[in-house]
Amino acid sequence: MSATIIDGKAVAADLRSRLAGEVESIAGTGLTPGLAVVLVGEDAASQVYVRNKAKQTREIGMASFEHRLSADTPETDLLALVARLNADDAVDGILVQLPLPDHIDAQKVIAAIDPDKDVDGFHPVNAGRLATGLPGLVPCTPLGCVMLAKSAQADLSGMEAVVVGRSNIVGKPVAQLLLAENCTVTIAHSRSRDLPAICRRADLLVAAVGRPEMVRGDWIRPGAIVIDVGINRVPNPDAGGGKTRLVGDVAFAEARAVAGAITPVPGGVGPMTIACLLQNTLTAARQRRG
Amino acid sequence: MSATIIDGKAVAADLRSRLAGEVESIAGTGLTPGLAVVLVGEDAASQVYVRNKAKQTREIGMASFEHRLSADTPETDLLALVARLNADDAVDGILVQLPLPDHIDAQKVIAAIDPDKDVDGFHPVNAGRLATGLPGLVPCTPLGCVMLAKSAQADLSGMEAVVVGRSNIVGKPVAQLLLAENCTVTIAHSRSRDLPAICRRADLLVAAVGRPEMVRGDWIRPGAIVIDVGINRVPNPDAGGGKTRLVGDVAFAEARAVAGAITPVPGGVGPMTIACLLQNTLTAARQRRG
Repeated sequence: MSATIIDGKAVAADLRSRLAGEVESIAGTGLTPGLAVVLVGEDAASQVYVRNKAKQTREIGMASFEHRLSADTPETDLLALVARLNADDAVDGILVQLPLPDHIDAQKVIAAIDPDKDVDGFHPVNAGRLATGLPGLVPCTPLGCVMLAKSAQADLSGMEAVVVGRSNIVGKPVAQLLLAENCTVTIAHSRSRDLPAICRRADLLVAAVGRPEMVRGDWIRPGAIVIDVGINRVPNPDAGGGKTRLVGDVAFAEARAVAGAITPVPGGVGPMTIACLLQNTLTAARQRRG
Repeated sequence: MSATIIDGKAVAADLRSRLAGEVESIAGTGLTPGLAVVLVGEDAASQVYVRNKAKQTREIGMASFEHRLSADTPETDLLALVARLNADDAVDGILVQLPLPDHIDAQKVIAAIDPDKDVDGFHPVNAGRLATGLPGLVPCTPLGCVMLAKSAQADLSGMEAVVVGRSNIVGKPVAQLLLAENCTVTIAHSRSRDLPAICRRADLLVAAVGRPEMVRGDWIRPGAIVIDVGINRVPNPDAGGGKTRLVGDVAFAEARAVAGAITPVPGGVGPMTIACLLQNTLTAARQRRG
């Protein structure tokens, strides 16, 4: 038996299409949700990512505001820009692309964003709202993980979920979301003993460790839903000439033979992140403007 | 074999004694940490609790400020008092005793407290700091649970911890603290399937559900550390005359025969809560005044 492949591109496209409809339906009220993205420096991956965000923002009918600052921008200038965007009524969501150059304190910049415009969900206030069940903005990748899991099984209640990885960006918030879905949630990590045995308990396994193909096929409970957050670039000797390929944190071919449903890499969690960012921007616009 | 009894009274007394020493050692700098406790209404249990807090605060050399308001105090008056306490430099910690009368929005009052004086650790900003590993003020009962577990085994790293209960006040923050101690942490709750089997996985079991003696002896892994947060009043037919007794969420006699170490009720987690409140007040004083 081979697992169902969870098609992140298709789920993300559905979500964008639904969001486009909602943006259109509120356009009559004169409201156009706006997303401001701030990029400091010339990091190539970040440039691609920011360009994609802007494109997808416009495609669903939202306003996109891009701010590109040079790599040597002083922290005070970046904080001043954030303050202007906080005060700008046309801006519903603010995203400062990470990583930031070393001379800038990312934590300080994130804390300067109005929590109600913090569409990345990284502000401590939003982490606290998530932790205590209050309405707030939730980090995009964890949101995407839960949507993909629910695309495979609509009701996650009572499932044994195991989250491998305890980062603030993925592991911890995805655990909170799965708890809110009434899963029994285990958070495992580098200090966990017998990680394979812990993973084998999972009806729903979320791998978010950033280690290529660490989770092997025999770590998977037969029939489990596997959500692979990892995006790791590794050498691809088959292609020759120093070529590389992308792999997840899960050994896909092995896991696919055991799991009930699994996200591929690429094409699984990745495409959901920007779609969830757009959803957060719409959520922020609605909450802020009533 | 019978489990070691974890003596919460003794651990709390040790902590208070250590705190008294620290308060004395900073008295030379002219700093006296101050704790303000606000009680609205006449709830009998709250009155006893507030009196004990004030007494223990003074006993370790801190200043205690008590504010008793009538049950019909308007919410605006309570918020005005919180604002005054926020601004009062002699006040390092503010605790508004819960529950509040129905006409007052407790969430709103908690959110009005300066997070840096929020010694109950219930403000969303402190929940967010805890969730993201930033320094902040942590709820008292969870802090006490972890201290008692560490009194039984100093290094919890790599242990399988199971927390039964997912309240904002105990279950969720204790899970965050155990994760920070490098435990593999499972949060189970009323929707969990086969709770006995989940509990049997635990090297460290924290029961925080508020259901008398729900956790039975055969739910306990032999040798496990058991922290019982429940304080439930039940009929005591042996004593006759409608008498009652206090029991935890764990069937103590059964569990004691299996566990390696266990907290009793009363005399386990209960005494730790006020001691941890005093510790939080000292922490707040240090952080705020440098």
